[in-house]
Amino acid sequence: MVIAKTWVLKKHFEGFPKHSDFELKEEEVPDPKDGEVLLEAVYLSVDPYMRPYSKMYMKEGDVMIGSQIGRILKSKNPTFPEGSFVEARIGWRTHSISDGKNLDLMLPDWPSNIPRSLGLGIIGMPGLTAYFGLLEICQPKAGETLLVNAAAGAVGSAVGQIGKIKGCKVVGCAGSDDKVKYLKDIGFDEVFNYKTVGSLEEGLKKAATEGYDCFFDNVGGEFCSTAMFQMREFGRIAVCGAISLYNDTEPQKGPYFLFPMIQKQLRMEGFIVWRWNDQRLEALTQLMNWVKEGKLKYHEHVTQGFDNMPEAFMGMLKGQNIGKAVVKI
Amino acid sequence: MVIAKTWVLKKHFEGFPKHSDFELKEEEVPDPKDGEVLLEAVYLSVDPYMRPYSKMYMKEGDVMIGSQIGRILKSKNPTFPEGSFVEARIGWRTHSISDGKNLDLMLPDWPSNIPRSLGLGIIGMPGLTAYFGLLEICQPKAGETLLVNAAAGAVGSAVGQIGKIKGCKVVGCAGSDDKVKYLKDIGFDEVFNYKTVGSLEEGLKKAATEGYDCFFDNVGGEFCSTAMFQMREFGRIAVCGAISLYNDTEPQKGPYFLFPMIQKQLRMEGFIVWRWNDQRLEALTQLMNWVKEGKLKYHEHVTQGFDNMPEAFMGMLKGQNIGKAVVKI
Repeated sequence: MVIAKTWVLKKHFEGFPKHSDFELKEEEVPDPKDGEVLLEAVYLSVDPYMRPYSKMYMKEGDVMIGSQIGRILKSKNPTFPEGSFVEARIGWRTHSISDGKNLDLMLPDWPSNIPRSLGLGIIGMPGLTAYFGLLEICQPKAGETLLVNAAAGAVGSAVGQIGKIKGCKVVGCAGSDDKVKYLKDIGFDEVFNYKTVGSLEEGLKKAATEGYDCFFDNVGGEFCSTAMFQMREFGRIAVCGAISLYNDTEPQKGPYFLFPMIQKQLRMEGFIVWRWNDQRLEALTQLMNWVKEGKLKYHEHVTQGFDNMPEAFMGMLKGQNIGKAVVKI
Repeated sequence: MVIAKTWVLKKHFEGFPKHSDFELKEEEVPDPKDGEVLLEAVYLSVDPYMRPYSKMYMKEGDVMIGSQIGRILKSKNPTFPEGSFVEARIGWRTHSISDGKNLDLMLPDWPSNIPRSLGLGIIGMPGLTAYFGLLEICQPKAGETLLVNAAAGAVGSAVGQIGKIKGCKVVGCAGSDDKVKYLKDIGFDEVFNYKTVGSLEEGLKKAATEGYDCFFDNVGGEFCSTAMFQMREFGRIAVCGAISLYNDTEPQKGPYFLFPMIQKQLRMEGFIVWRWNDQRLEALTQLMNWVKEGKLKYHEHVTQGFDNMPEAFMGMLKGQNIGKAVVKI
């Protein structure tokens, strides 16, 4: 018997999340039964999707949704031997019992010089989101121009680098000068701070005078509607997230962008990464290889301690992280 | 030497077009030179696209853009023999000289019981717009539910009927009870008058409780943003037109629909029919066959006389037509 700590959604978020919306609880975790495992969190993830998903899929009192890298402490399931590492979609919990359905073994032969936390980042869900969203929805061709916003985030930084691997000119937007510098360091061609640029429209035009063939949108709202007018004919827009809208209490309004959609014959598609689950292993292997080859660089924003998960989550929503925000136990 | 009448854009439209924005002019048309033809308009088309295109592609003093069915009066171009009928993208003119580049011969063996004006309608650009937009962008499957707005218009009425041919449940929205009745008569499954329905959202929900797989949008604006929230997972939206926005002097704003795009993984694509020009003849032949077989019904709203073209155009923009609005000389 172990005692698990969990973070519970005490009260549905209204506007930006507050510390008082969360509650730290403890519960006893029994020994695993046949087919089950007991796992212990090593790293936990905080991601933007948790904000809208809390509203769509959770009720007050539920353990916060989320993924973690866990180590199997006890196993009565031969797929997950003791000591193995898994990615577990099991919520904000230090210890858990699982029948294995919400677990995936991490890639075998994980190199010792690559942190396992990347299994929550560039070699995990955010990396897959970047990989499939860019390659399947935007379908970039060498020589094309790609726009990424929230570009210093876990997904955005991977999108831009995969765009470079595929031969695109990559333009990234981020919200601080540190982030802009980071993006230049990892190979983005043009970068600007959208908070200090004056006019986003002018910034976008200056960074790519011919306009954009591909646009990977993590931000939504005004950024999206402005960028839509800067797309080139037959441009493709992957709608991955809308972090600028997640904390609204009233739905935001903006100018319709149907004219450029028609005139430029643009294609815009929303997606959730699980759509390509059948190609997950192949894609993770590719991402791992790019990381090993130094073609995909990563940065992590690590918060120490399970007790600090709400702060890590709220900090990520404020954009305090460069790269992937994770919590280390 | 013949005298042509032409309608000129005297003043760029501001808001809804006014009669004083147009000017009727006469000009002498010389005899055709080698490679040229002289043609005479038989039917002229008035279409929604002329409103935004006037702003994008015309200057004051230009002859209004548009297509006509013309008869070749004199020919020095063997492709277009005297007496043959052509679809001519040559503007609002009774007589014209052409080198053939803006002409297409009508389908051969045009049946005598099918009006040649359909070459401006269901067996012409609007029919092709419906055909390619629906089949290539929406990619409807039998058993799916299709939503069409401006459904009694030239394009919308073809979209709905092609949807029925492909085995869809078809829901149409139109702006008068006469139009609603017409749509029921030509086989739409569910139809409602969006002007009297009270709540568009409720009307859409009632017509298809499970939501929509395909949405062919001719209207844009508020209709579009409302309908986006009624789409089913992996829904496809063809953005054909935005007639609700064409006469704006200030860009309209509406709620962002990025959440349903992501959550339902929707794909939205704008298009212009010329994209599929290489398949034009094949598609026209299919449309003609469906008309002959009675599977595609048509209705025309005919205005008599070239002098009445501005009225025909403005009436069409007001939605006074059922089916295709044409002007007969």
